[in-house]
Amino acid sequence: MAKVKKTSKKQPVILITNDDGVTAPGIRALVEAVKGLGKVIVVAPDKPQSGMGHAITIGNPLRLQKVNVFENENVEAWACSGTPVDCVKLAVDKVIHSKPDICLSGINHGANHSINVIYSGTMSAALEAAIEGIPSIGFSLLDLSIEADFNAAKKYARILVEHVLDSEPHDKHLCLNVNIPKGEEKMIKGIKIARQAYAKYEEEFDERKDPHGKRYYWLTGEFINFDKGKDTDVWALENNFVSVVPVQFDLTNNELKKKLEKSWKF
Amino acid sequence: MAKVKKTSKKQPVILITNDDGVTAPGIRALVEAVKGLGKVIVVAPDKPQSGMGHAITIGNPLRLQKVNVFENENVEAWACSGTPVDCVKLAVDKVIHSKPDICLSGINHGANHSINVIYSGTMSAALEAAIEGIPSIGFSLLDLSIEADFNAAKKYARILVEHVLDSEPHDKHLCLNVNIPKGEEKMIKGIKIARQAYAKYEEEFDERKDPHGKRYYWLTGEFINFDKGKDTDVWALENNFVSVVPVQFDLTNNELKKKLEKSWKF
Repeated sequence: MAKVKKTSKKQPVILITNDDGVTAPGIRALVEAVKGLGKVIVVAPDKPQSGMGHAITIGNPLRLQKVNVFENENVEAWACSGTPVDCVKLAVDKVIHSKPDICLSGINHGANHSINVIYSGTMSAALEAAIEGIPSIGFSLLDLSIEADFNAAKKYARILVEHVLDSEPHDKHLCLNVNIPKGEEKMIKGIKIARQAYAKYEEEFDERKDPHGKRYYWLTGEFINFDKGKDTDVWALENNFVSVVPVQFDLTNNELKKKLEKSWKF
Repeated sequence: MAKVKKTSKKQPVILITNDDGVTAPGIRALVEAVKGLGKVIVVAPDKPQSGMGHAITIGNPLRLQKVNVFENENVEAWACSGTPVDCVKLAVDKVIHSKPDICLSGINHGANHSINVIYSGTMSAALEAAIEGIPSIGFSLLDLSIEADFNAAKKYARILVEHVLDSEPHDKHLCLNVNIPKGEEKMIKGIKIARQAYAKYEEEFDERKDPHGKRYYWLTGEFINFDKGKDTDVWALENNFVSVVPVQFDLTNNELKKKLEKSWKF
């Protein structure tokens, strides 16, 4: 992408992707949510890619196919055989041929608060855009159902996208992890800017035997919040706020770095 | 893992995994490097899993098979059908049945400095252990070759593992990203604790046509270091130091959070 240049700001170019696949109701909700805010282009996985984290496809080639999923909205859409991160990379290099003004990911069917940000294909796509210098937002609704009500999520997605597009000059590495509580719009109290809670899954693999007597394992787990802070995304969501966590791709633990620099002598 | 308890400290239990697969030369080098430091158990992917990032297997069950890869070293080894992160989860719940004292990942065939930490299966396995409260270190050698010389990497791996095992009481979420320069041991000047450089790949997909005339794309890219700091992992490696970056799984961008809290009003 060394040769691409920034798209004109006159009509913002909005790249939309997700990890549930190009035909998921959540991505349709996101396309509808930002209607009229810019030129929308969808490049999303051709199949569900939940839990793919920041995986990229190295050992296999990728396919990209134009699909008529959003023809009623007059939106160009492509299905990609790769991961959500692949979608962002391919979209910039081979579909848009330049950096979009913003990249949106979602709306995910299910929560991506706390530690989920690490496993989430939705958030990894957003983070990939931020690495590329494209401001990005990942949206997730705390409702796994295929029949989830996306109305509240759509309302808040539009508010936040407008906010980022209007905040000039914004941080080009800006990346927001937005989670929306499940339920009706009127139940939501507003938006809280929050930090990532220390909450995680306590895994218990479900061990079974196949018809040939060989063992196999299903990943299952119980979600536990170890973080009692009232400034976290989990707290905000439990109290019916939309949570907005600004996230970064610099994983350096600066506190530990300082400690080790003082105490470790080789 | 809610029911497991911390293993006794008398003989440390050392879990070893990687992303190049259980038969890769790099994991053998790591097993050899820590010989005598504790009871070693290997749980690693049954096939190469490079670039898998923090992917987990949700929609399919996992297989786990005992393999005689390290019988000469008297080390128990298991091949897992899943990702590096799956390996760590399964090892704790179904192989060790408790938390090991340390988790080591690698030695990766190829660099995992700077932004690579995000895409790397090696580092995601280490980070997964840290999430679980198991101190961890990921090791990578800047040599992709299957015939790479692991002697220097082995020496520094042993020094660092001893250091972490001896540093009591250590941070249970400690996670180190260690990269070792390519080349002979005598060329290496020592160890530098560093921060993650802002360096990334500028992607160019290689577009081809299959025998049926349909397009496909190979991910290729040029690595570019945008970070001129002399405190980064890339600088350390270019100057023949082993780089050690303490990494974290809290992705909150606290600086941006403060800025948004001040400037964004809804």
